[in-house]
Amino acid sequence: MKRHTISVLVENHPGVLARIAGLFSGRGFNIESLSVGETEDPTASRMTVVVRGDDLILEQVTKQLNKLVDVIKVSDFTKEQFIERELVLIKVSADGRSRSEILQICDVFRARIVDVAPKAVTIEATGTEDKIKALVNMLKPFGIREMARTGSVALARTSK
Amino acid sequence: MKRHTISVLVENHPGVLARIAGLFSGRGFNIESLSVGETEDPTASRMTVVVRGDDLILEQVTKQLNKLVDVIKVSDFTKEQFIERELVLIKVSADGRSRSEILQICDVFRARIVDVAPKAVTIEATGTEDKIKALVNMLKPFGIREMARTGSVALARTSK
Repeated sequence: MKRHTISVLVENHPGVLARIAGLFSGRGFNIESLSVGETEDPTASRMTVVVRGDDLILEQVTKQLNKLVDVIKVSDFTKEQFIERELVLIKVSADGRSRSEILQICDVFRARIVDVAPKAVTIEATGTEDKIKALVNMLKPFGIREMARTGSVALARTSK
Repeated sequence: MKRHTISVLVENHPGVLARIAGLFSGRGFNIESLSVGETEDPTASRMTVVVRGDDLILEQVTKQLNKLVDVIKVSDFTKEQFIERELVLIKVSADGRSRSEILQICDVFRARIVDVAPKAVTIEATGTEDKIKALVNMLKPFGIREMARTGSVALARTSK
């Protein structure tokens, strides 16, 4: 099933989020990731939703989204060139011996150490879904204690 | 009103997200930001919700969250030391003259250029809500064309 990155610009009204999430799950779409944050306009938020599903049904969902009063604009990035990034915080077990190896991996992935304790380090990394996946796979052998991922956000590419 | 960062570990079932978002908005909490992403466990997702509201009512919401079948764990980071980060993509107007000034600002904020076109640059930055706000304020005079922010994600600090 095809991966779709949908960006929905919405008015900041209570309940909008629940309504939109309900629209996707009501059609059987499993939301892979979702991010909601402020935009350049203080009265609007941008939701970025990553779903896997059928093209035709997604087109119906998009049409329904456009009919909601609080929805300002819906963009499906799937058809155009876009920049996509997510952020992850990963807490990995680390002692004196393994720490330097972990630091080397972070270097390669341009990740940053944001907290160090005697038996663990916390890492911040950004990238595409694939890059994050690769980093997580490299860190797994050390023991991942906790992980928190934002969903992806996306903007259309200007340089085409 | 106090700012609360709540982390909810949930089973990956369709409809969970809409139910949880509905719980907050039903109690009149305006969700400031929300992120949902994968975790170290493929059957679970972590939602990080930032809300502003009354302590007592939030305690009630937390209790109700804990009663939901699909909720594994709820943590309120407000009472402990934690690391919080979000990511933003910002497309700023830039020509030959303003570009170098924008690059300098990016340097200070440890932000990265992810796309360059003749009349615009796209910037990726991470940090706390306050840092992102400061960067956005510095870039505003150049003309922000588009912006997409993930919500915050958080992990408890291990080094105390």
